[in-house]
Amino acid sequence: MSMPQAWRLAARTAAMRPSAVRDILKVTQQSRVLSLAGGLPSPDSFPIEALAEASRRLWLERGASALQYAASEGWPALRQWVAQRLSAHGVPVAPEQVLITSGSQQGLDLLGKVLIEPGQPVLVEQPSYLGALQSFAPYQPAWHTWATDAEGPLPDGLRAGHRLAYLVPSYQNPSARCVSSQRRRALALRAAAVGVPVVEDDPYGELWYEQAPPPPLFTHAPDDVVLLGSWSKVLAPGLRLGHLVCPASRLDDVGARLLQARQGADLHSSSLGQALVCSLLEQGFDLDAHLAGVRQRYRAQRDALHQALLRHLPPGWQWQVPAGGMFFWLQGPATLDAAALLPQALNAGVAFVPGEAFGVPGQVASALRSCMRLSFVTLSPDQLDEAVRRLASCLPGAA
Amino acid sequence: MSMPQAWRLAARTAAMRPSAVRDILKVTQQSRVLSLAGGLPSPDSFPIEALAEASRRLWLERGASALQYAASEGWPALRQWVAQRLSAHGVPVAPEQVLITSGSQQGLDLLGKVLIEPGQPVLVEQPSYLGALQSFAPYQPAWHTWATDAEGPLPDGLRAGHRLAYLVPSYQNPSARCVSSQRRRALALRAAAVGVPVVEDDPYGELWYEQAPPPPLFTHAPDDVVLLGSWSKVLAPGLRLGHLVCPASRLDDVGARLLQARQGADLHSSSLGQALVCSLLEQGFDLDAHLAGVRQRYRAQRDALHQALLRHLPPGWQWQVPAGGMFFWLQGPATLDAAALLPQALNAGVAFVPGEAFGVPGQVASALRSCMRLSFVTLSPDQLDEAVRRLASCLPGAA
Repeated sequence: MSMPQAWRLAARTAAMRPSAVRDILKVTQQSRVLSLAGGLPSPDSFPIEALAEASRRLWLERGASALQYAASEGWPALRQWVAQRLSAHGVPVAPEQVLITSGSQQGLDLLGKVLIEPGQPVLVEQPSYLGALQSFAPYQPAWHTWATDAEGPLPDGLRAGHRLAYLVPSYQNPSARCVSSQRRRALALRAAAVGVPVVEDDPYGELWYEQAPPPPLFTHAPDDVVLLGSWSKVLAPGLRLGHLVCPASRLDDVGARLLQARQGADLHSSSLGQALVCSLLEQGFDLDAHLAGVRQRYRAQRDALHQALLRHLPPGWQWQVPAGGMFFWLQGPATLDAAALLPQALNAGVAFVPGEAFGVPGQVASALRSCMRLSFVTLSPDQLDEAVRRLASCLPGAA
Repeated sequence: MSMPQAWRLAARTAAMRPSAVRDILKVTQQSRVLSLAGGLPSPDSFPIEALAEASRRLWLERGASALQYAASEGWPALRQWVAQRLSAHGVPVAPEQVLITSGSQQGLDLLGKVLIEPGQPVLVEQPSYLGALQSFAPYQPAWHTWATDAEGPLPDGLRAGHRLAYLVPSYQNPSARCVSSQRRRALALRAAAVGVPVVEDDPYGELWYEQAPPPPLFTHAPDDVVLLGSWSKVLAPGLRLGHLVCPASRLDDVGARLLQARQGADLHSSSLGQALVCSLLEQGFDLDAHLAGVRQRYRAQRDALHQALLRHLPPGWQWQVPAGGMFFWLQGPATLDAAALLPQALNAGVAFVPGEAFGVPGQVASALRSCMRLSFVTLSPDQLDEAVRRLASCLPGAA
């Protein structure tokens, strides 16, 4: 048998890279490893009884619609619900601005397709959400790293010429950093002044444990920010639903192109999932009460992980207790190579994500190599303690 | 209030275009228009009772999995099911080759991202499935038109240097043409000889009305063809599920890049939909019996549309009765401008898709302008008759 001729891959594939998190996820799903790696919400946090009931109603009331093709923009009732909910939270949005996406991940891909030009600068934090780096990479940006201080990215880092700037202002993945209220305003005004689109990714804004985060950048500059939301953390990730809010003034150009990109990408999000959420809302599901329960659960898990870190980690490690979101960002001793430690940790039965996975492609800051991200939302408090005990057992200097 | 500064769009957006079908769909959903335009399956063809029962079982047996993140490749049980079903139909495939996609539309987008280089030639038929043109367009190919005869595209049209070639061999959308068995073999061997990937899109292969179509090109050259399948026509489009079969010999390069592109695009297809299909299969759903019923229904609708065309259309129109799929492709008088006719037709209460929508961007063949596509799967036989009566009433020369 002769080997087939190699196919020529597009040049953009050279910029693609695997997801460290997805690769680790595969290992941990096939073993007894306790995973601090993935951002998998605890199944106990899913409103499963309410969704099962909504599903029963769905098949009685809108089964045919749940199985049929639908508009690429999303179901009208859901666009309206997103607009109303955001507006009630002080973010005035009209339903026409809302595009229902297959998770906020798809919003990132569509924005990359419409806004990023090969070789042109895109501004991102370091560390940054690696899924965004993965979405943008095939569009071949020149990566620019956003200088930051304790309050968040610096406004004057945002300059005319950037094709877009990306940030997660509330409880960033992986650093858990929350941008201050003043800084949000300054960033939004700067975006308006230089005419650069800011992509504000907000999957964790509802997961606060002491007080709600400041208002989104979008509220300060609704012509200059695209706001992304995920339903993965507030309802369930398996639905693959999220939303993209486009500035009203840009619907005719950017909005139209996003919609065309979306038609080519997959036509529309699952009608079944959209129908299920519609039925859930119609039966009077109290999302705020549900979120209060999720916050209480995750707060306890966060506190358990903090206690475990205090209990088991040797001296020389630093972290801040996250005020929201799903992750601790640990800074190990400067000599630590977290990626090199991972195989040992897996052997010991614990997984984490090495900090370098969150680095800007080709420019990974050396400080990231001694960091790691730990998720506290998947494991129980007892499991979290055991996981950190295992982790500590393979650290340099462990007994 | 000052106008915001315009954002710079990526150059690739200039190649994007709206979907004529989706635009017409919006008009027809908001009115009393009888639509021959969309390819919406009749809701009566959905196995809704079986899916409702599967849904009840889902919430008892795998509710948490249906709501959780999942592997980007798709649920293992579904990859296995696709491989087994294809293998049983004479297309030997291993589960590892199967990527579960959000409709075959997503497979097209991923292939475009991984294989198409800006300015490099991509070979497509004219007319061609407009969703494929829409998927590929943002990757900025140079469009090459595939010369065809009565048996299908000509093998020597496929040449080294093409980045990919795209075809729908069975009951093409819009032309309903089915490529002959000999031609399929010749095309597959040619693809192997010149080392060009052929994307074989097969959404309609199960919708045959007299006899099954010849085996896919993939069977003749399993190293040289990527085979796409849709579950929209055999189960329901609202699930947004389909599959991509990658040659086993190309999993390490093309397959790995497709998976990375997929992670960046939307992580994975809806767990809810995948869980529902798993539960459906586990409860012993007889897909073949279901398909026999769908074929019977659509055959009757096809025959009804054919009779309506014979009854109402004036002389000078030509068509072939489609042996499968969902569409009639009508050739009007040479002087007809079908796009110009559409507003009148909508006024008269009937919609169709003008032939030029299926043309190669920038090179629309003039012959397409006098053609139109009519779908027979959405309307009942009586409605089909009335729709054609309305259409005929606005044709040149109508009484």
